[in-house]
Amino acid sequence: MSKPPIDFYFDFSSPYGYFASTRIDELAKKHGRSVVWRPMLLGAVFKITGQQPLSTVPLKNSYMAHDLVRTAKLLDVPYKLPSKFPAGMQAPSRAFYWLGDKDRDLAKKLAHALFHAYFAEDRDISNPEVTGNVAAKLGVDKTELTQALTDPAVKERLRTEVDAAIERGVFGSPYIVVDGEPFWGSDRLDQVEQWLAKPW
Amino acid sequence: MSKPPIDFYFDFSSPYGYFASTRIDELAKKHGRSVVWRPMLLGAVFKITGQQPLSTVPLKNSYMAHDLVRTAKLLDVPYKLPSKFPAGMQAPSRAFYWLGDKDRDLAKKLAHALFHAYFAEDRDISNPEVTGNVAAKLGVDKTELTQALTDPAVKERLRTEVDAAIERGVFGSPYIVVDGEPFWGSDRLDQVEQWLAKPW
Repeated sequence: MSKPPIDFYFDFSSPYGYFASTRIDELAKKHGRSVVWRPMLLGAVFKITGQQPLSTVPLKNSYMAHDLVRTAKLLDVPYKLPSKFPAGMQAPSRAFYWLGDKDRDLAKKLAHALFHAYFAEDRDISNPEVTGNVAAKLGVDKTELTQALTDPAVKERLRTEVDAAIERGVFGSPYIVVDGEPFWGSDRLDQVEQWLAKPW
Repeated sequence: MSKPPIDFYFDFSSPYGYFASTRIDELAKKHGRSVVWRPMLLGAVFKITGQQPLSTVPLKNSYMAHDLVRTAKLLDVPYKLPSKFPAGMQAPSRAFYWLGDKDRDLAKKLAHALFHAYFAEDRDISNPEVTGNVAAKLGVDKTELTQALTDPAVKERLRTEVDAAIERGVFGSPYIVVDGEPFWGSDRLDQVEQWLAKPW
């Protein structure tokens, strides 16, 4: 288990990030790797790349809506396009880093629960109250958490992570880095697996 | 062999279209299907979607350059980023439809040869002379072909195909339609294969 961990970048608003989140740890474990989850904000990336959210691009948006339902079905993952989509995911991302600095495993559980709340239950996790409720279910103190979400240090913590992600070239979600090798998109998990089995 | 054919849309300037072109017919044949190749022009699509060629999007462009080399290696397909990239592919696309109206199999051979010339030999197939030379190697009359490339009827033939592609929702390359089910990207060929084996 001494092999370097995999970096898993995602935006909580990204359905393909959600799909990857359901598979990445199991895939890594098979090859003796751990995964560091790194939520980031696509909005900050798009300011640099000039891209638009997929949901606003003509033709591509209706394809995406169809592809998401189909891919979820093929992966056997519950999925429904959220009523508020896309959304700015500062609250869940800050919650993740704040909790993760104290308990990394619990933070990962929280991320799974947040993704599920958003994409399977149509709950608006961009709302700090909702993120707080999801965390409370896992035994996290909701008051403490919602206060942390407006703490300048916690805000800065997320900003630093997003800047570092962009610095590293992350431009989409999911974006996975293994041994310095970058992979973009949930449909690149097969290449991630090939790399883990036998780097080229 | 009475199952409906697969529609394979691509731009001759698209490396992922090239990758898919090396596999699509074999994949279809395994499931008793034929493939209708339909070159189109991404430039016309981007006017509608507001997208930019990948090569001009910051962060994404350097990832793409890396991903193309890696994916070509994994697929065992010769590949080198062409010196002139991307390019407006009116000439090879018109040549394809002009020839295909007379001999569909020969047109497919021409498309393979054109893709190979561009992505493996760095020859600028957007130049009518080069397209003519590639076709001549297959026994096509070069003079006749290069004259056809400026024939208003042949130009109109391509325009009609591009319009029909956009009408159908084609926004990228490759874009594959099987039984009305659309698949975008060379990394969706696994889903195409799943569909061919067992439609969901």
